[in-house]
Amino acid sequence: MTKFVYSFGGKSAEGKADMKNLLGGKGANLAEMCHLGLPVPAGLTITTECCTAYYNNNCQLPDGLMKEVWAGIAKMEELMGMKYDDPQNPLLVSCRSGARISMPGMMDTVLNIGLSSKTIPGLLKRTNNPRFVYDSYRRLIMMYADVVMEKAEGIEPAEGKSIRKQLDDMLDAFKKQKGYKHDTDLNAEELQWLAEEFKKKVKEVLGAEFPDDAKEQLIGGIKAVFKSWNGKKAVSYRRIEGIPEDWGTAVNVQSMVFGNMGERSATGVAFTRDPATGDNRFYGEWLINAQGEDVVAGIRTPNPINDDTKNEKNRHMASMQELMPEIYDELFAIRGILEKNYRDMLDIEFTIQDGKLYMLQCRVGKRNGLAALVMASDMLREGLITEREAVMRLTPSQLDELLHPILDAKDEKLQRVIAKGLPAGPGGAVGVIALTPDAAKAYVAAGKSCILVREETNPEDVEGMRVSEGILTARGGMTSHAALVARGWGKCCIVGCEALDIDMEAGTVTIDDVVYKEGDVLSLNGTKGNVYAAAIKRSDPPANENPLFKEFMAIVSKYCDMGVRTNADNPQDTSNAIGFGAEGIGLFRIEHMFYGENSETPLEKLRSMILADGEAQRKAVLAELEPYIRKSVKATMKVLNGRPFTIRLMDPPLHEFVPKNEEGMREYAKEHNMDYAELYERIENMKQVNPMMGVRGVRLGIIYPEITEYQFRAVFTAMVESIKEGNTPHLEVMVPLTINVAELRHQKDIADRVKHEVEDKSGIHFDYKFGTMIEIPRAALVADKIAEVAEFFSFGTNDLTQMTFGFSRDDVNSIVGTYLDEKIIDADPFEIFDQECVGELVKIAIERGRRTRSNLHCGVCGEHGGDPKSVEFFYRNGMNYVSCSPFRVPIARLAIAQLAIKGVERKQL
Amino acid sequence: MTKFVYSFGGKSAEGKADMKNLLGGKGANLAEMCHLGLPVPAGLTITTECCTAYYNNNCQLPDGLMKEVWAGIAKMEELMGMKYDDPQNPLLVSCRSGARISMPGMMDTVLNIGLSSKTIPGLLKRTNNPRFVYDSYRRLIMMYADVVMEKAEGIEPAEGKSIRKQLDDMLDAFKKQKGYKHDTDLNAEELQWLAEEFKKKVKEVLGAEFPDDAKEQLIGGIKAVFKSWNGKKAVSYRRIEGIPEDWGTAVNVQSMVFGNMGERSATGVAFTRDPATGDNRFYGEWLINAQGEDVVAGIRTPNPINDDTKNEKNRHMASMQELMPEIYDELFAIRGILEKNYRDMLDIEFTIQDGKLYMLQCRVGKRNGLAALVMASDMLREGLITEREAVMRLTPSQLDELLHPILDAKDEKLQRVIAKGLPAGPGGAVGVIALTPDAAKAYVAAGKSCILVREETNPEDVEGMRVSEGILTARGGMTSHAALVARGWGKCCIVGCEALDIDMEAGTVTIDDVVYKEGDVLSLNGTKGNVYAAAIKRSDPPANENPLFKEFMAIVSKYCDMGVRTNADNPQDTSNAIGFGAEGIGLFRIEHMFYGENSETPLEKLRSMILADGEAQRKAVLAELEPYIRKSVKATMKVLNGRPFTIRLMDPPLHEFVPKNEEGMREYAKEHNMDYAELYERIENMKQVNPMMGVRGVRLGIIYPEITEYQFRAVFTAMVESIKEGNTPHLEVMVPLTINVAELRHQKDIADRVKHEVEDKSGIHFDYKFGTMIEIPRAALVADKIAEVAEFFSFGTNDLTQMTFGFSRDDVNSIVGTYLDEKIIDADPFEIFDQECVGELVKIAIERGRRTRSNLHCGVCGEHGGDPKSVEFFYRNGMNYVSCSPFRVPIARLAIAQLAIKGVERKQL
Repeated sequence: MTKFVYSFGGKSAEGKADMKNLLGGKGANLAEMCHLGLPVPAGLTITTECCTAYYNNNCQLPDGLMKEVWAGIAKMEELMGMKYDDPQNPLLVSCRSGARISMPGMMDTVLNIGLSSKTIPGLLKRTNNPRFVYDSYRRLIMMYADVVMEKAEGIEPAEGKSIRKQLDDMLDAFKKQKGYKHDTDLNAEELQWLAEEFKKKVKEVLGAEFPDDAKEQLIGGIKAVFKSWNGKKAVSYRRIEGIPEDWGTAVNVQSMVFGNMGERSATGVAFTRDPATGDNRFYGEWLINAQGEDVVAGIRTPNPINDDTKNEKNRHMASMQELMPEIYDELFAIRGILEKNYRDMLDIEFTIQDGKLYMLQCRVGKRNGLAALVMASDMLREGLITEREAVMRLTPSQLDELLHPILDAKDEKLQRVIAKGLPAGPGGAVGVIALTPDAAKAYVAAGKSCILVREETNPEDVEGMRVSEGILTARGGMTSHAALVARGWGKCCIVGCEALDIDMEAGTVTIDDVVYKEGDVLSLNGTKGNVYAAAIKRSDPPANENPLFKEFMAIVSKYCDMGVRTNADNPQDTSNAIGFGAEGIGLFRIEHMFYGENSETPLEKLRSMILADGEAQRKAVLAELEPYIRKSVKATMKVLNGRPFTIRLMDPPLHEFVPKNEEGMREYAKEHNMDYAELYERIENMKQVNPMMGVRGVRLGIIYPEITEYQFRAVFTAMVESIKEGNTPHLEVMVPLTINVAELRHQKDIADRVKHEVEDKSGIHFDYKFGTMIEIPRAALVADKIAEVAEFFSFGTNDLTQMTFGFSRDDVNSIVGTYLDEKIIDADPFEIFDQECVGELVKIAIERGRRTRSNLHCGVCGEHGGDPKSVEFFYRNGMNYVSCSPFRVPIARLAIAQLAIKGVERKQL
Repeated sequence: MTKFVYSFGGKSAEGKADMKNLLGGKGANLAEMCHLGLPVPAGLTITTECCTAYYNNNCQLPDGLMKEVWAGIAKMEELMGMKYDDPQNPLLVSCRSGARISMPGMMDTVLNIGLSSKTIPGLLKRTNNPRFVYDSYRRLIMMYADVVMEKAEGIEPAEGKSIRKQLDDMLDAFKKQKGYKHDTDLNAEELQWLAEEFKKKVKEVLGAEFPDDAKEQLIGGIKAVFKSWNGKKAVSYRRIEGIPEDWGTAVNVQSMVFGNMGERSATGVAFTRDPATGDNRFYGEWLINAQGEDVVAGIRTPNPINDDTKNEKNRHMASMQELMPEIYDELFAIRGILEKNYRDMLDIEFTIQDGKLYMLQCRVGKRNGLAALVMASDMLREGLITEREAVMRLTPSQLDELLHPILDAKDEKLQRVIAKGLPAGPGGAVGVIALTPDAAKAYVAAGKSCILVREETNPEDVEGMRVSEGILTARGGMTSHAALVARGWGKCCIVGCEALDIDMEAGTVTIDDVVYKEGDVLSLNGTKGNVYAAAIKRSDPPANENPLFKEFMAIVSKYCDMGVRTNADNPQDTSNAIGFGAEGIGLFRIEHMFYGENSETPLEKLRSMILADGEAQRKAVLAELEPYIRKSVKATMKVLNGRPFTIRLMDPPLHEFVPKNEEGMREYAKEHNMDYAELYERIENMKQVNPMMGVRGVRLGIIYPEITEYQFRAVFTAMVESIKEGNTPHLEVMVPLTINVAELRHQKDIADRVKHEVEDKSGIHFDYKFGTMIEIPRAALVADKIAEVAEFFSFGTNDLTQMTFGFSRDDVNSIVGTYLDEKIIDADPFEIFDQECVGELVKIAIERGRRTRSNLHCGVCGEHGGDPKSVEFFYRNGMNYVSCSPFRVPIARLAIAQLAIKGVERKQL
């Protein structure tokens, strides 16, 4: 029969730290501490397999389980010198959950199990502390009724009032009647009386007696913990964290020790290093004569455990180091043993019962990004961990945290979230509301930081976006204009915040009937998508100038074995990205160069090109645009200094560039000396019902070949000029939105012709690669044919996701929200790459493309290229590189290094 | 060495009729006629393989070819009793193209080859007809200079004036100078003089001498025919007809016989049966003392060959039957021999030279749909052909012709096409312009037929569309609203006619600066997409009531071995479709029932549902809509009488249903007693940038589950009511726009719940199938999982094409036009199914779906289901049925029967 119960205690245990899958994190670490010889109250762990068996068995405990449990209890009795359900010297136990990975507060716990009319007299006699006994008893009743009798039985609280709330209300009413302020004011008799009243209330409300039998109590506790694995909170937490449903939880049944048995008792929590700064100092808090939950719940302000933990607020409070120096020394020694054993920072819980120290828990401690960086660096220097381990110590999201100023977590907690949107640009921003780019510029000129709040942004807004601290839009998804531009700059940005109701005329933003005016302060948490109507403090400036960060990234580089390029459209972003470790440009969008700061004139020209009346006029405008493109490409070539440079031919979303309303059109017509009616008609003819699937990308270059021609002329001329100046550009040009090879041949003919012209004229011959985006499902399926012409592939996973799902990224917010709520999808496919289907198309395209051209170079230039989970897919499936916005470059590099260190298998390139 | 030359003549030949691939149609049939003992002027055929060799050999004739040709010429000389290039008795030859299938007028021909200063004296002596000799000579010079010396050499005409035109001008000038009207007015001396002048002009313009050498002439003629295979006209014809580039053409070198040698000479063309009516009578025209081109070119009005060919216009003209009864009898006998041998109606060309009949060509004759039907029926009855052959005798497009009134072809030819659009609904329509549905209704009420001309149509236009003869829109593609609705009714319709400039205020339509007013007459050819500004006669009414049609379809049914269902949304269309042989409904679009004639109220309610403010209001409107849906479904069930009935849950294109402009919104707000601003905002919130990829299909049913619930309630209630009334409906319900199985589970839960409710309430239990559309690429890829819940698949190939190509069907016209011109795609993928990629996704989906559910029923319900080429793909790849609009049902059934007869292989179902 499967072994379901693992005992621990007395410096030995049946489990150990690496048995987390079976014993849960808590159980495995308790066992490990026993092996290390640390003082752990004896106990037993019921395995996660038992939880699975319980659910497979229609929520019945498996046969034979309780026999194993009672055998384990017998071992505990021996080690603790007490007996469970014994009238003289009763052992009390706790019953706690423990999943493979920590799910703090998501599952249930019952303490003080074993108290009954049979055992209470013995405990009274042994402790000589009736107040403690009856306080423990009434706590048991409250917890048990709540967790075991109500929640685990699935009873819906009558009139929405849970039994827990009803018992709490009784306690409060009694205190009020007696004029008491604190629970501690109640004496033993009163607690005894209350316990009896509680039991009556339980019977009345739940229709069942509180069990007066210790054995029944334990069985109920075990079942309730299993049951809580599928409680609402736990299920929703698992969904968010991506924890599989079938992992199950272990149950830890452990001997109770009490920190609340008097002045020689205490309880506390500590971190082996400072989790906020990462500093190598022992950091913790404790409370004398208290139980663990008192420290956690914040009812009493806990004392510092040592001098290192003292700060301005708690400097006057007595530390454990001062009051119980021997025990502190023992704890400090344990800290050393644990860190040496676990080779990481640990979060520990301890209790002192009547002068004796007990370890109740240890686990790897949570930390913020900065602390993670500091600890990894320190531990590497201390020789505690290897370089490979150091690389594994920062999650990509911790690294991300380091790259942006963030809102102060404590200050943020004090504020109410007034609206939520999509977290399009991480970090924190604080400033006054500006509703137009001009207002934003005016505020900044006046020395005020501002948040640009828009329905959605478009290229005309770019100047205002650049000067703003943060950007907030009511519409658009993770790949909307605002999101793309903001991410490129590493700027805080929230998009698709549908609660916003912007009234431009009134100059107001209304959220839930509250009206905010231009000039009112907002704070944005761009990592979470939260909006606040207050000025929240910001934490330290980004750490990317931190030398530790640079050292860390240098180590990461040693292990990063897949290329990381950047999506950049101008020399400045390119330079940033190279600083972050980018190996070149994977996506240079020609039309994006018109979004920039100093681009007033060219943007206007681009618009004229789009609105041109016939080929001749279009060519005239293109001829004016060409030198501008050439200059920008050449400047970027200079910055790149020979690194790969992938330029995408224009894919301008036409509808974003033309005047939208009558006013704009009249103005344009006037400026360009045009007939309004004619302009109106031209724009009407250009309108598309579904612009995303309309005249875009290569379609534009086939309908108007001159657009392609002028781009190649600009790029190739930049190329020969750069070569003349001694540079050796590594140029790649790609065609967007391809559906078949004929499109590529058509465009390549133009490119070849222009190349000969430029070469003949300059006398300089050069090489470059002609490639294509793969971003339409059809292209993926005919990749073998496409590779006959395309010398490289770059996967546009945003568009590919759109077409594969039939989701318009502009409209998808309302759908994705409901789909996530209804568990129809696990994640927004524009955030996390859909490996199942979009992934299959990518795999098909790579495989077929390389069938034709065995050394075909493949990369990804959608925003997925900066998402660690997605990067893993690309890593496994034969991609040569990913390309992402500059601020995602370090994250992608870290993710890749970690995959390499984990030895993740890659498809042969 | 490969044999390149096949001789024929003297009642024997090296080729025969089934060698078309090698000898071309013309050559193979000339050989066949020799085998049949018919009088054919001796000749030789140079194979299509030689054409391929010529092109592979850098446009040089293969070595040894001319040796074979001269050997063939020697045989001809023997048979004809003349010698090529002989001063005494010269043989003249023609040099004609002949591809595998007829490409009339697309390639070049040279006649009278062999005339030179060496041979002319002999011919003069033998014929004693100098006028004939010099006329032949000047014709040779004109044709040779044009075809061999200019076109085949790729010489661009100077100042755009071809040599042909220049020589024609000389002829005209000479005639003018002499005061002649006809070419026949020129005498021998004048023609001789002209021939000399022509030769000078040729030298002057083309820089080369007209060759005075018979051998050189023949080599030039052969090369020119090969060259003309890649002439502009031929290439574009092949592209339209889908003829492969590499087939090549054969060259037929044949002894010249002359119908213009006097009154005992003549020439003519005939059909073995009447090609216009199909009647079994010999039908033909002839001209005495003329050459073939005179009959074809229509310079002289030809005479009837016999009494059967006489009509009111030519009754007075002498027939061959009357003037040359022996020769007519010989020809009539040949007609019988040919029909018996070919077992089909033939188109023949003959020449009578000096009282002797020669057969110059025979081929299977072209015919219209009605004639094809009549001939197939007659020949079957006559025992000439089998049932299987009869089924093969009508092309699907000929069948289509039978189902619609069409424009009279002759009358149509006299009119100028003023605009072209997409041929969305076949047939012909004539009527006055109506710019609004109301105007259309008014015209019809006043007894005038009308054409509804709209920018694009929407559900509100449906009443006006129904009463109109034809529909013409400026926007939209083959699957636009207008196209779908019109096809459902078999109504003539042209969409996407971009030349239209509609001014509603002025009540005018402008095309190329010509203004047409409401009330002006238009004619539409919906089969070709042509618009005319005239009232063109219409041919006979549709033949679907023709008993021959019914007999024919009954035979088709014996061989049709794949299901054909119909896309119908109301009892009337369903009834039509069943009459056409539909085996059930494959697509019943719930939202379409609101488009119908008597639907004023429900359409309004559907709109209210879409614009409802919150769940409660929406449910209230749904409750009002439900009985309407129920009634329509029940009535359709009655008509179907147990046949399969596949209902698709609503997929309303929201943007089509809500008021579009301020006026409409204000009206709606007023009618519904709403605040305009509120309505405006609700509509604004509903707006989608790319509605095709937005909130549609199942997404709607997940965001608003009540919409799904009420639909199931209506359908299931109709089901139990039908059962109560003794019907046994075969119900299938499907979910549109699915991307994964979770969506289906979500919707199925609702369906299951409603089913239990309806069953419990009625006491009637029933079965139905729950299935899904496969119309998003993602769904195809996870078809294995989707089949866990879906009990059947129906492929929505329109949407699948949109997403696979990234082509919005609403916007695609401008792209597809250019793409076809640039040869980037072979066909509009919304018309002809893209087998390569959309097809791959369909194959993947069927294969994966059946991996999960081996007997998974699969069908197609996009318009491709009625396209013969696409049907073949579905037939081969394991589809159980196709579903198409009622008027396409016979076409699909015929296409399938023909595939079955051809023995096309099908994937195991």
